[in-house]
Amino acid sequence: MKNVPAMKHGFKFSLLLMMVLIAGCNMEEKTDEASRQSVPVFPKGEILSSDNFTGTVWLHMMGAEDSTLYARFGNVSFEPSARTNWHSHPGGQVLFITEGLGYYQAKGQPAQLLRKGNHVEIPPNVVHWHGAGPDTEFAHIAISLNTDEGGAVWLGPVTDEEYAGLDK
Amino acid sequence: MKNVPAMKHGFKFSLLLMMVLIAGCNMEEKTDEASRQSVPVFPKGEILSSDNFTGTVWLHMMGAEDSTLYARFGNVSFEPSARTNWHSHPGGQVLFITEGLGYYQAKGQPAQLLRKGNHVEIPPNVVHWHGAGPDTEFAHIAISLNTDEGGAVWLGPVTDEEYAGLDK
Repeated sequence: MKNVPAMKHGFKFSLLLMMVLIAGCNMEEKTDEASRQSVPVFPKGEILSSDNFTGTVWLHMMGAEDSTLYARFGNVSFEPSARTNWHSHPGGQVLFITEGLGYYQAKGQPAQLLRKGNHVEIPPNVVHWHGAGPDTEFAHIAISLNTDEGGAVWLGPVTDEEYAGLDK
Repeated sequence: MKNVPAMKHGFKFSLLLMMVLIAGCNMEEKTDEASRQSVPVFPKGEILSSDNFTGTVWLHMMGAEDSTLYARFGNVSFEPSARTNWHSHPGGQVLFITEGLGYYQAKGQPAQLLRKGNHVEIPPNVVHWHGAGPDTEFAHIAISLNTDEGGAVWLGPVTDEEYAGLDK
């Protein structure tokens, strides 16, 4: 029975190895989850320096190079609680949500919760805002349409009181 | 030393458990990878029954409910080698690539390789096609612009000879 101590150590060692394996397995999942969250579908672009937004917002303009399209479009990314000011578009706009979770609200209407895969149609001259949820990042492609009608008309910020009232 | 057989079994059992853990850990990764590939950003919709396409194509129309936008848009998904016919849009079109790898080609120009995160601006009346690579799935949001100018003008299929010439 001289192998017993070795077997005993083997048993302890295998228990230790199991713990390492379980930890490693979980760690791999978390790393994978983190890397998945950090790779957006469309480029994030640069931080936008503009008085028309609250919080940190990134913009990657994508066009239109061909002015005959009468459209302007780009990818807009919002840190949690970041948002546009109230504004409207003379030719309307469409948003395609590509990351995270956020809101669209037309003036006088309840806010709509938006997730990756949703889209929003914003008719001409409807005053509205869009942006991230309080604790969630958010990104969408924004396409301003019929831009021969004119550029966006910017109004005042969505106040903290208006934003805090989202879930009521 | 009456605990030895139990310890011996414990050792064997722990080895077996380790193997199960390792297998489970790998399986989890693979399941995760498979599910990631099979969950598109935007809904895939229904198989499109149309003579204007070659191969299997899915369409999820997303609008526009508000006709004042003068835009039509949807998510289009292509199986490997599936593609549109040659066609043009009187008001132009924009594509945003959301999945896989494919091509855009304007008549008389070299084909452009397109990946997830790319976009294409298609000026009014430019004859072109878009679709998947020979071995890759492909999906894009397509936004037809200025639709008051008229709907798409459909021409003949991209022949197997034209498609086979992509990489030349």
